[in-house]
Amino acid sequence: MEPNIRIEQALTSALDEATDRSTPPGLAAALRHAVFAGGARVRPRLCLSVAMACGEDAPPLSDAAGVAIEFLHCASLVHDDLPCFDDAALRRGQPSVHKAYGERLAVLAGDTLIVLAFGVLARHVPGAPQRSGELLSLLAAAAGTPHGIAAGQAWECEERVPVSAYHRAKTGALFAAATVAGAIACGAPSAPWRLLGERLGEAYQVADDLRDVIGEAEKLGKPVGQDQAHDRPSAVAALGVDGAKGRLDRLVSEAMHSVPACPGREQLCAGILQEMHRVLPCKLSLVAA
Amino acid sequence: MEPNIRIEQALTSALDEATDRSTPPGLAAALRHAVFAGGARVRPRLCLSVAMACGEDAPPLSDAAGVAIEFLHCASLVHDDLPCFDDAALRRGQPSVHKAYGERLAVLAGDTLIVLAFGVLARHVPGAPQRSGELLSLLAAAAGTPHGIAAGQAWECEERVPVSAYHRAKTGALFAAATVAGAIACGAPSAPWRLLGERLGEAYQVADDLRDVIGEAEKLGKPVGQDQAHDRPSAVAALGVDGAKGRLDRLVSEAMHSVPACPGREQLCAGILQEMHRVLPCKLSLVAA
Repeated sequence: MEPNIRIEQALTSALDEATDRSTPPGLAAALRHAVFAGGARVRPRLCLSVAMACGEDAPPLSDAAGVAIEFLHCASLVHDDLPCFDDAALRRGQPSVHKAYGERLAVLAGDTLIVLAFGVLARHVPGAPQRSGELLSLLAAAAGTPHGIAAGQAWECEERVPVSAYHRAKTGALFAAATVAGAIACGAPSAPWRLLGERLGEAYQVADDLRDVIGEAEKLGKPVGQDQAHDRPSAVAALGVDGAKGRLDRLVSEAMHSVPACPGREQLCAGILQEMHRVLPCKLSLVAA
Repeated sequence: MEPNIRIEQALTSALDEATDRSTPPGLAAALRHAVFAGGARVRPRLCLSVAMACGEDAPPLSDAAGVAIEFLHCASLVHDDLPCFDDAALRRGQPSVHKAYGERLAVLAGDTLIVLAFGVLARHVPGAPQRSGELLSLLAAAAGTPHGIAAGQAWECEERVPVSAYHRAKTGALFAAATVAGAIACGAPSAPWRLLGERLGEAYQVADDLRDVIGEAEKLGKPVGQDQAHDRPSAVAALGVDGAKGRLDRLVSEAMHSVPACPGREQLCAGILQEMHRVLPCKLSLVAA
């Protein structure tokens, strides 16, 4: 089954169980809104693709890993959109969770998604203790401190922000967790997969920065994007469009070369390149791999 | 070692590791403030007391369970104090986390504590897979939906609040988890311990309600407490002071009688009674057990 179909099914089934009829209706609705609002599922698809490339032998466990990763990602978006952070009214063209359901349910939906992420994996401990234990520790590190998502977001609250630590934690940690988790879920040596996740995380970040400038300019004749408006660190601000594009090419090339030997290496690399083209502004094309 | 000394040491060591020098300083400070602001550690002490009564054979695992329970409790307090919920400026006589460190770091400190709770337990999976797996699932249920803390707090956002489901989830879930976790941590049959946690959770709630009325009246000549001010459900509002006191006596008596046969039953019961006297307004005394 295609990773994107698998992950939607797994997310649906995990959320159905967590929001039965005894759940407060507002929280149940906010959770659904947070998870099913048109996300591209980049991280869980990456996780499943790595598992499949490694010769997956326990699909329910990789599904659980993908679900946990996506729940943590959605939680961070919901809390990131809160009035005290980005105060974003929209997310993927729809009202953000706090706009649709209020700030209190947005805080609680984020909290619940974090809990659910670990709850989904915890069930696999009896059947696959070693792999599940590694997955749980991996995701706790990717979500928490000192180098996970929460730490990354907390750098935004400091006067002096170490830009690379900020990006590594806020974006890179969960990408690296996605590739490593895919390997762990099928019992493959996982450490060699970290570099792929790190490079791809950074590549997505640079592609985002490019879209923020070129996308806007193409559609609206408005060269100034959100990064500049929010004074966020951006590869385009630091390197210019050409410099950022060169950096993206290098990152994708390094990502490709980092992929460890495995049964499905070729298909995995082809899929990753296709995915990178999807997120690149349409007037650019990759010079990579 | 006394449970209260053990738990402080375990909390300190868990937080030290999670806030090394590469952690954003504001987040590290907010986490310390959230955890070390004079909490009574009721839940983790209960967890450790049950483990010791059952003939504890793996103290590091019970410590981890106690730490995880306290981190989840602290996370819920930090988020509960946020401006969008109770907007509390003080907690235990000190500035609440959002007052001291800002709303963003309060949101992130709560998120991080939830992650840490599961991370602390995840480490024990390799050495004690069955017990750790049960503890992880237990705490995910106690913190999330449909019957955990987040669900309990979410009932506050509904127009019609089912009072008993609200209390059971918001307060009872973590108390029940504390007694059950103590048994799981030492491999004892855990289900028979749930009733003790449930009754004690409710007893603490009623004692709180009584203190909110009698404590205030004694000290300040101010009979109207916070529950009434916030229009919160309260046992005193529903039953009057005498009715609530009668209910408390019954709950403590039921709690005592529910304690399963175990090597340290007598000492555990004595400790619980002592603890209940501590939280009772001083002009009342228990007619129980």
